[in-house]
Amino acid sequence: MKRQRIGEGNQPLICTPLVGKQRESIRLELHHVLEKRPDLIEWRVDFFEGIANTEKVLDLAQEIKESAGDIPLIFTLRSVREGGQPVSLNDQEALKLIEAICQKTEVEYVDFELSNSEEAFKELRQVSLESQTQIIASYHNFEFTPESEILLGKIAEAQRLSADVAKIAVMSQNLHDVLTLLKVTLNAKETVDIPLISLAMGQYGTITRMMGGVFGSSVTFAVGESSSAPGQMPIEDLRSVLGILQKSIGQV
Amino acid sequence: MKRQRIGEGNQPLICTPLVGKQRESIRLELHHVLEKRPDLIEWRVDFFEGIANTEKVLDLAQEIKESAGDIPLIFTLRSVREGGQPVSLNDQEALKLIEAICQKTEVEYVDFELSNSEEAFKELRQVSLESQTQIIASYHNFEFTPESEILLGKIAEAQRLSADVAKIAVMSQNLHDVLTLLKVTLNAKETVDIPLISLAMGQYGTITRMMGGVFGSSVTFAVGESSSAPGQMPIEDLRSVLGILQKSIGQV
Repeated sequence: MKRQRIGEGNQPLICTPLVGKQRESIRLELHHVLEKRPDLIEWRVDFFEGIANTEKVLDLAQEIKESAGDIPLIFTLRSVREGGQPVSLNDQEALKLIEAICQKTEVEYVDFELSNSEEAFKELRQVSLESQTQIIASYHNFEFTPESEILLGKIAEAQRLSADVAKIAVMSQNLHDVLTLLKVTLNAKETVDIPLISLAMGQYGTITRMMGGVFGSSVTFAVGESSSAPGQMPIEDLRSVLGILQKSIGQV
Repeated sequence: MKRQRIGEGNQPLICTPLVGKQRESIRLELHHVLEKRPDLIEWRVDFFEGIANTEKVLDLAQEIKESAGDIPLIFTLRSVREGGQPVSLNDQEALKLIEAICQKTEVEYVDFELSNSEEAFKELRQVSLESQTQIIASYHNFEFTPESEILLGKIAEAQRLSADVAKIAVMSQNLHDVLTLLKVTLNAKETVDIPLISLAMGQYGTITRMMGGVFGSSVTFAVGESSSAPGQMPIEDLRSVLGILQKSIGQV
């Protein structure tokens, strides 16, 4: 099922993160998260203390994938520069780990930041095509919301690099930022061919986690067991709002 | 309680319309609407078959007001040119009826369209100040969403005419229109002194009925018993979403 296109439905997929530090806590977290029936699960491996041991990571990734069953898994090693946890791996080691995930597990998606070199992107694209793993090319800004042109540029860059999915996540400092993010999402929906995941973090950004799907975001992140970014809301609340939106608008 | 300022709280007020044609059906409608505990009630008197008989209208308005108790009442004679029902009253007769409502009932708000003459506005302002009735100066466009500058101009016009509240309601043909309406609402919040009621009608406009409060709309209209405009949603659904917004954002 690796090649299923993300967000083909008329509702955004709800993705819940796993942010445990140890194998046992991640297993427990997964158990609780699965009870909430998310559409996607993202393993934030940068939180995992065993990240430097490739075999351990591969084993756990495959175990999570098997437990998740039909629920697709995103493998994400978020860098410190884009809001992740400090890890002992350098960029090259991180790339190799992600490639190993593609080659040796059934994980459907790997996140790869647009701040990586074009060379690294090309290498991962080659490896991931062979294993039919999809790449989510991501851009995060935990400080502010850049102007529309910059955000649209990031999305275009993801497409140019042959990513399967583009993701932009920005910090909203006010409601104008929220409107900028929604406008960019809508413009991208009308002009970009690959699916987009977009969201604004922070207090007001929460609106985009609820409404972003209407404007063209394919995935929205919610708290299953623990939050991985500012403004994530409980999956139950998100599902209630999405249900009412679906009923009210007809399609979201 | 006539002079209480609208929308002073941190949640938009939920207003449900009364659209019955006869006294008995309006009474029944009011009974059902009151069970839903709206924050405001709007009597759309243009639906009332007895509109030409001023005494009947005044009696019923006062009766609705007394039944509604602490829930403020908006008296609205929507003109055909702004989406209302055809009535036998001309503009001058309509003005006189609204003035009588101010003078002889405890109704808190009267809606008066910005398309009325400035002379009519001044006359009603004088009368309504004496009775401490508040004026909602309104603009409706059931066809499309005008550009931001035009909408901001309507709001500024309401303020210039010394209205207590400005209202703009426009038809959204697409999601760009929805963003225009939200942007105008946010800009008005930052630049205009009087409270604003704003909404986009139509399928996608429903989003503004849920989210408009966050951007600065003081009132949102919901279906209690019957709808009075395209895109209104059931009060129960609206209240659920507003509750989740309040919880997620902290204030909406």
